[in-house]
Amino acid sequence: MTVDESAAAYRMDAVTARAIVMRALAAHGVDDAACAVVADTLVETSMRGIDTHGVRLLPRYLSDLEQGIANPRPTIRVVRETGAAAFIDADAALGIVAGAAGTREVVQRAADNGVAAVVVRNSNHFGAASVYSRAMAREGMVGWVMTSAAARVAPYNGRGPLLGTNPVSVAAGAGDAEFALDMATSQVCLGEIRERGRRGQPLESGWATDENGQGTRDAAQVAALSPVGAGYKGQGLGMVVTLMTAVLADAPLDWQLDHIGQAPPGRGRGIAHCLLCFDPAVFGGRDSFDRRLGDLVRTTRETQPAAFEPVRCPGDPERQREREAARTGIPLDPDTARELHALAQRHHIPVPPLPQPAAPKSSATDSSTAAPSSAPTAPRRSM
Amino acid sequence: MTVDESAAAYRMDAVTARAIVMRALAAHGVDDAACAVVADTLVETSMRGIDTHGVRLLPRYLSDLEQGIANPRPTIRVVRETGAAAFIDADAALGIVAGAAGTREVVQRAADNGVAAVVVRNSNHFGAASVYSRAMAREGMVGWVMTSAAARVAPYNGRGPLLGTNPVSVAAGAGDAEFALDMATSQVCLGEIRERGRRGQPLESGWATDENGQGTRDAAQVAALSPVGAGYKGQGLGMVVTLMTAVLADAPLDWQLDHIGQAPPGRGRGIAHCLLCFDPAVFGGRDSFDRRLGDLVRTTRETQPAAFEPVRCPGDPERQREREAARTGIPLDPDTARELHALAQRHHIPVPPLPQPAAPKSSATDSSTAAPSSAPTAPRRSM
Repeated sequence: MTVDESAAAYRMDAVTARAIVMRALAAHGVDDAACAVVADTLVETSMRGIDTHGVRLLPRYLSDLEQGIANPRPTIRVVRETGAAAFIDADAALGIVAGAAGTREVVQRAADNGVAAVVVRNSNHFGAASVYSRAMAREGMVGWVMTSAAARVAPYNGRGPLLGTNPVSVAAGAGDAEFALDMATSQVCLGEIRERGRRGQPLESGWATDENGQGTRDAAQVAALSPVGAGYKGQGLGMVVTLMTAVLADAPLDWQLDHIGQAPPGRGRGIAHCLLCFDPAVFGGRDSFDRRLGDLVRTTRETQPAAFEPVRCPGDPERQREREAARTGIPLDPDTARELHALAQRHHIPVPPLPQPAAPKSSATDSSTAAPSSAPTAPRRSM
Repeated sequence: MTVDESAAAYRMDAVTARAIVMRALAAHGVDDAACAVVADTLVETSMRGIDTHGVRLLPRYLSDLEQGIANPRPTIRVVRETGAAAFIDADAALGIVAGAAGTREVVQRAADNGVAAVVVRNSNHFGAASVYSRAMAREGMVGWVMTSAAARVAPYNGRGPLLGTNPVSVAAGAGDAEFALDMATSQVCLGEIRERGRRGQPLESGWATDENGQGTRDAAQVAALSPVGAGYKGQGLGMVVTLMTAVLADAPLDWQLDHIGQAPPGRGRGIAHCLLCFDPAVFGGRDSFDRRLGDLVRTTRETQPAAFEPVRCPGDPERQREREAARTGIPLDPDTARELHALAQRHHIPVPPLPQPAAPKSSATDSSTAAPSSAPTAPRRSM
């Protein structure tokens, strides 16, 4: 889910955005190293155009710190381990801090053992899963990342939410040979449903179901998202993510989790992550891996297209948006622009003034009353 | 893909089917232990109703042995290893023999290390992926299995086949708390397309594309299958399977593989498998794992259904068919019935006579000239 660039009210350069995240977190008692990790992660995610998981999350994370849902000074510890495996308690850390700690663990263990698995319990929302899988890829590994999430998706033939949107990210390679899949196991995300509703457009069939479990194309009737493919395969993939995260971590299952922004204060949300890491050197060898991966990526892109747009690899659109954002800044929706602007002023970080709305009109009113998670976004393909 | 039981011409008890597979393989020089592994695997798969991957494959495997594509006496060896990881050369073994050897390796290594990964190169068609993941589950592990396959699936927005149907199977638990997902990363399999064509029924939208890469509902116009969800997510999942198998194994990529039955004689097809195994004891603990998994499976089944049929877990339909087949025998399509019957007679295994066709008519002629892979099957949900 990306910000519709034509609707972006404001662009912010990455250095400024990073400074705002750093200072706002530090003011909430987060130590310097953790501030830097979260700032780098949110800014990178926004630059790659995955804006639902980028700097727009900062106000939510600050709120979690204020309410004691996220612990600014966690003691992240290995509860159980072998050489290749570790079970980590994140002590209610900010999810990004827990995700980064898990990534460091799993890369080191994979380098020593050829393969490694790290399961994290007692964490919070960790942003975009591809941040961690891509960090593993930059170390020459194949990275897999999954996280539990609160229920939004109905099982095939079922009524009402049971599973989270339960993302899977798999990454390998770097630069133009990068493969970076980051996908929810639902057909689309809730933001896409809301956006269609706001525009008064019908949903595609297979996206969502109503309270009777029947497919609906009316955003107002949506009771649950549908699994990818709208059948038993997507249901099964969503359950695999629950299995590898909450079940392996002895953590709350999807329907036992509170949604972000709705958890009771004073304790972590109990999110669980699973990080897997594979060292190609132990299998067919590093050189052959790079060669075969390059062949896979290149041949995919060179497949004869069905339309004007070329066939793309997972990660291609994000890399393109990252290059654009480096040139033009991060496009922010009006709500996020206002919130980051206010934080910048509070922390004495210089920022250009916000654009003034030309005149009050109904669409501006709609936008100012919308919840952060329903800010204007375009139904673009986020591959 | 399962045999339409109403169209099943013949039922065979498991003991007889097993004896036929054993004797036919032994006559092709396969050693006793390998004969037993392949027989158990094919019979189990047929009993679970995954008939495209069951005893129907025996004639194909015999042909592979006759043509030197499969090696009856392979030397399966570990090429490279750490404690938790192994890279195995299958020496062109029958795929089921390679898959079983890989499963033994990965379970032992996961028991010692908490997690293990085994990548196999130089193998052949290994039947149903869930055979191996479920074998790991029976050892108390979480099992993941993937295999490379010859290209049938177009990438999103692309023309023509690029990726194989690249299955993923994940299994955990046993008995009524079993979770056993086994799915191709295409929306449906080729058999389903052919069956609709034979019946003159239109395809569902999102199943397949024509030679211009446009969606088609006419089976005769199909040039490629579509990835699950008919979008970039399914394409990405298919590519993940290629990455974890062929790319990690330094083996031919999907479009470089020959289809089963079309490979040149004298060498193996170069199929690669990936087997992953996770020991819950190292993470949240075995008791909590069993409890949470039971909760996941039970709660899913108890979800309020949208229709008369209850919501099911991956593996539920197969377990039900296995119980039926134990009572009534394995339903065989007419072609497979004839082929197994002929093998039984050749090897002096007593079998009931084949039913005589009532009278020659066009549908019988169609059936006798159909290729094994297009034998009558019902478009049933194979969860």
